[in-house]
Amino acid sequence: MKKTVTTLADGRELIYYDAGDGEARGGYPDRRPLEPAHRNAQTRFDELQGEWVAIAAHRQDRTYKPPADQCPLCPSTEDRLTEIPAPDYEVAVFENRFPSLGGPDGGRCEVVAFTSDHDKSFADLSEDEVALVLEAWADRTGELLARPDVTQVYCFENRGEEIGVTLSHPHGQIYAFPYVAPKMDRAVSRAAAHRARTGRNLFDDMVEREAADERVIEQNEHWIAFTPYAARWPYEAHLYPKRRVADFTELDDAQRAAFAPIYLSLLRRFDGLFPAADGGPGRTPYISAWHQAPKRAPGAQTEVALHAEIFTVRRAPGKLKYLAGAESGMGAFASDTTPESAAIALRGAGR
Amino acid sequence: MKKTVTTLADGRELIYYDAGDGEARGGYPDRRPLEPAHRNAQTRFDELQGEWVAIAAHRQDRTYKPPADQCPLCPSTEDRLTEIPAPDYEVAVFENRFPSLGGPDGGRCEVVAFTSDHDKSFADLSEDEVALVLEAWADRTGELLARPDVTQVYCFENRGEEIGVTLSHPHGQIYAFPYVAPKMDRAVSRAAAHRARTGRNLFDDMVEREAADERVIEQNEHWIAFTPYAARWPYEAHLYPKRRVADFTELDDAQRAAFAPIYLSLLRRFDGLFPAADGGPGRTPYISAWHQAPKRAPGAQTEVALHAEIFTVRRAPGKLKYLAGAESGMGAFASDTTPESAAIALRGAGR
Repeated sequence: MKKTVTTLADGRELIYYDAGDGEARGGYPDRRPLEPAHRNAQTRFDELQGEWVAIAAHRQDRTYKPPADQCPLCPSTEDRLTEIPAPDYEVAVFENRFPSLGGPDGGRCEVVAFTSDHDKSFADLSEDEVALVLEAWADRTGELLARPDVTQVYCFENRGEEIGVTLSHPHGQIYAFPYVAPKMDRAVSRAAAHRARTGRNLFDDMVEREAADERVIEQNEHWIAFTPYAARWPYEAHLYPKRRVADFTELDDAQRAAFAPIYLSLLRRFDGLFPAADGGPGRTPYISAWHQAPKRAPGAQTEVALHAEIFTVRRAPGKLKYLAGAESGMGAFASDTTPESAAIALRGAGR
Repeated sequence: MKKTVTTLADGRELIYYDAGDGEARGGYPDRRPLEPAHRNAQTRFDELQGEWVAIAAHRQDRTYKPPADQCPLCPSTEDRLTEIPAPDYEVAVFENRFPSLGGPDGGRCEVVAFTSDHDKSFADLSEDEVALVLEAWADRTGELLARPDVTQVYCFENRGEEIGVTLSHPHGQIYAFPYVAPKMDRAVSRAAAHRARTGRNLFDDMVEREAADERVIEQNEHWIAFTPYAARWPYEAHLYPKRRVADFTELDDAQRAAFAPIYLSLLRRFDGLFPAADGGPGRTPYISAWHQAPKRAPGAQTEVALHAEIFTVRRAPGKLKYLAGAESGMGAFASDTTPESAAIALRGAGR
């Protein structure tokens, strides 16, 4: 893998990742006349919930559903300058121009362009392309976690207008939080309590139980995917490496090699749940959320297992699961699908 | 107030609340040939998050955006039989035909029809009508909390198609949880820790701080409304009685009398944020979530303060706040609005 670190016109970092020896990407300066980047995001602590909230008012002005010929994630051309100055790239990562984090309280938001091809989706990538994305995620995780102002590195992908995606070019995001995010904070506490009570790791015990249950969707030698016992979403898959690791940087070569086939297969299962009008694969909206251990502190934080939680808000053709009073108001999820039937549907779907 | 308890054709309870001596509502049996009510909802515990999840697969078949002349919450007529057999009513409460709770694990879901007038919204009610809704909420809270299978009574209203509301008739819901719901569970823990550390009540300290800050929206002798310091939503108002009570049943007469004016005013402020095309008041989608203390257990649960959290997912005209990877995947809220500017907007809005 070749990595080329560059700087955009407003001072933000842009990094190209290329497979093999890769191309020379450094010779393309950003020729746009940009205003300085936003650095005024705040973090505030909610005393009632014990959770951090990020506040970034400048995001009201962020790019909103540009036409395809205005896509800021396509490579630049003679006529049109985008966020990515080079005329082509494989994977590109850059600091978000409208970040939710990164003010005086620290943290950083990055965008990961998975491919230069505007019309693909992640599930269309080749296994080699996915392997390069994985290398980029691992590199970013290591670099960001080493920063003194970062506590947790969260890689995720939002796909679909139904969940508010404003850019259709295939891309994900990385939030490098200056705090432990709420769901992670709860898992860390739960895992510490489980260790104190049983002497065992909570994730290991849970994966072992799920592997023996009826909700397994798919597995290979190194990874296993299942719909969890207490799934919250209409269709949900959790993907774990069978040997527990804290984050992407700890995956060994065999785990890395076995990743692309199962991750692509899972995403294609989601697309297969809701076929397009012509009977071909649909484009199911989904969120893919990578849980990685926060920065090591003595004790509990060594317990967290790297895994992905992939889920869709589509509960039936044309019907979405909304987070209303129960979920948004009280955190109380009510699912319209049994996890067992969701696992059956995901096992039977694909493209 | 007059209360008339009746039974629907499938065994569900329906209760009429009328102001004053009220009307005789009992003489109208439910003449529909109904299948037995659903009683197969499950609750499952998510070990990683330490949260309960409700699973109710029958809800996939629930009533979905019926035309106005098929509304199940309008009074019944000679020609059309609805969920409410009487030819008119003031407030009606009945068990949900498609409940998320109420299987073998306990709990109950109720629907609260705020008025028989299909075209009104809550903000259109008179102060007397609101006072009757408050009486109904208090009555339901006391009755449900007395059931051995109920731990927390949660009254809420979802308004607007944008958050998935499938019936436009003005109504709210009550979830009588057999467990302490996640947000409440966290608040109970936080309040216990605050008491242990400071000897004081967390809610009292927080309201005192907010009352002295710049985010107060409105107050009267008995109630105060503010946008909280760490607001998660584009526009958010929290409404507290100035004398702390655990739930609706503990409000005294003066607090009850002072409630309708400020609650109506707040809801009208939300409508005023986004005027209709003709310049008149809009219909802002909102969630109004009533936090009430769960069933008293020794210690921490006496600390919770009754309050409403009212918020909208609309962040700008035509733009919604979506819960995507950050929020749904990691519980990490990122707000595009500063709480201070939201409070200014709410203070300036109305209808």
